[in-house]
Amino acid sequence: MKVVIAGFGTVGQGIAEVIGMRQELFSKSFRQKVRIVGAFDSSTFVKDAKGLDPGELVARKAATGGVGAKSQEGKIREFIEEYDFDTLIETTPTNILDAEPGYTYIMAALNAGKNVVTSNKGPLALKFRELSRAAERNKVQLRYEASVGGAMPVINLSRELLRGEHIYSLRGILNGTCNFILNRMKDEGLPFDQALREAQEMGIAERDPSYDIDGVDSACKLAILANAIFNMDVTYHDILRTGIRSITEDAIALAAEQKKVVRLIGEINDKRLEVSPRMVPMGHPLAIGGTLNIVQLITDLAGEITVVGRGAGRRETASALLSDLLAILSDDHAKGR
Amino acid sequence: MKVVIAGFGTVGQGIAEVIGMRQELFSKSFRQKVRIVGAFDSSTFVKDAKGLDPGELVARKAATGGVGAKSQEGKIREFIEEYDFDTLIETTPTNILDAEPGYTYIMAALNAGKNVVTSNKGPLALKFRELSRAAERNKVQLRYEASVGGAMPVINLSRELLRGEHIYSLRGILNGTCNFILNRMKDEGLPFDQALREAQEMGIAERDPSYDIDGVDSACKLAILANAIFNMDVTYHDILRTGIRSITEDAIALAAEQKKVVRLIGEINDKRLEVSPRMVPMGHPLAIGGTLNIVQLITDLAGEITVVGRGAGRRETASALLSDLLAILSDDHAKGR
Repeated sequence: MKVVIAGFGTVGQGIAEVIGMRQELFSKSFRQKVRIVGAFDSSTFVKDAKGLDPGELVARKAATGGVGAKSQEGKIREFIEEYDFDTLIETTPTNILDAEPGYTYIMAALNAGKNVVTSNKGPLALKFRELSRAAERNKVQLRYEASVGGAMPVINLSRELLRGEHIYSLRGILNGTCNFILNRMKDEGLPFDQALREAQEMGIAERDPSYDIDGVDSACKLAILANAIFNMDVTYHDILRTGIRSITEDAIALAAEQKKVVRLIGEINDKRLEVSPRMVPMGHPLAIGGTLNIVQLITDLAGEITVVGRGAGRRETASALLSDLLAILSDDHAKGR
Repeated sequence: MKVVIAGFGTVGQGIAEVIGMRQELFSKSFRQKVRIVGAFDSSTFVKDAKGLDPGELVARKAATGGVGAKSQEGKIREFIEEYDFDTLIETTPTNILDAEPGYTYIMAALNAGKNVVTSNKGPLALKFRELSRAAERNKVQLRYEASVGGAMPVINLSRELLRGEHIYSLRGILNGTCNFILNRMKDEGLPFDQALREAQEMGIAERDPSYDIDGVDSACKLAILANAIFNMDVTYHDILRTGIRSITEDAIALAAEQKKVVRLIGEINDKRLEVSPRMVPMGHPLAIGGTLNIVQLITDLAGEITVVGRGAGRRETASALLSDLLAILSDDHAKGR
């Protein structure tokens, strides 16, 4: 399998390394090599039909800030369409305004008959149906486990292992930064601003934290889950959204007196499509601490199935991209390709 | 697909009903009908190559205590070997002494070229390798998601969705009865005996509770996970085992002062293969309450992945059997059978 990596930040570098680490698995399970035949970031570009060395790519990025020569303005799309490869691994940053450049790259790949594996929330939270229809029309796969909850395998769990269930509803914590802040407020009795500052100092929250604490990130992920698992046709804008800025230490102390904790919960059911702070009984799976992500699915036979995992990180997100790559390899293998 | 149901207690009836409920799914996803062409319990037997009605089967069992005519002593094995069907759904009760009658039924089916889907811990906790080798040799599938943790999809998650991970270790709560008792002791300050009595009154614990509270049930499940996920070759007897009988309310109160709870934890790693009571920090996923089952996998890329589900119940166990049936149907479908 020949892959091209789009975007070469933390996630792109992570999947390059992991592809290097797993060659034995690819050959043992599927008698395949996975070759990185191209990579690009916002300004540089490299290709080699014989395959690029992942370690060299990552070292070059660290040393020079790029993966190769300066790329020509507007030529990337053409490259995706015309170059000979099988799967685009799309890891450009989430853009919640117009989903670019990810949307253009993904569409170009799908329409050129290439599979796409992505960690990018923007295109999926804004233009899910266009993308999934393009994949269907071109008989290729579009997979996006890495776009929701990092290493937490909620999408493949729902669509594959739980394919026999009727999934009625979903609840989850989809943003580790908010969970960390709420948990510190409870454990240490900190006011919101102080817990946020602590999270920023630890690198858990960004300098501009609004994407996390106003629930934008959670809402993007909830929109993707609504589309992927519940077959809805929604965008990020359809999610009713309240963040955690106005949660006071008093509210958290009051909840604790009732043996409850406050969590930023995303919920999908036939009445709600919402991200908002909610009270959760201690001991309930959703009362989880730390920066973990968690999703609980309510189904007709199994009852509740809950999955928890690390919501972010270089290796963790690469893990989800890898699982999607393996699913494509496995599918090709079963079909005797 | 023609299936025979072995054992027609709670779980056997549950999967019969679920097969009835999911005919539309079978035909939509795989252009298949799943027909129940035979069923038997410890003393009665019925077959019909055209297919038995699940509702009628369950009603007959309720009305007469059996599924059909008295079965002839020793003829069941012959029936499994000679009758024309594709998959045995084996749901006879767990027997931890000699794994019978499940072991004989499963072996007969595998050696006759039939797939097996089972919820029965005994054969897997005592003779895992013999069974998995027989499946390999006969090029059929042996699947057993339902044998560990009811609806919690830990085996298929580990073996399928996480096939790209190196799984280093596993920790989990595999017995809902113990978890209920430990949780009631903490929440209400009850002594062990009283919490156990309450669990018995609620039907959560058996009249003879030793199978649960001495950790036998957890150890069986841990042995199955060690074999299935870590490719070990162990039996239930290889698990170091301590139950919860000697946990005092004082120990639980002391743990609570340190913001910890006591849980009966099963653990697999390169040094340990053990079921024992352990302290877990509140807010940690393993501090879960109620009768839920939980497993946490520690892997090289994803870090920790945790899955939680209902560990027992008619529909819940049927849900796991169904997921295995669907995996077989899907595999057959991909291979164009």
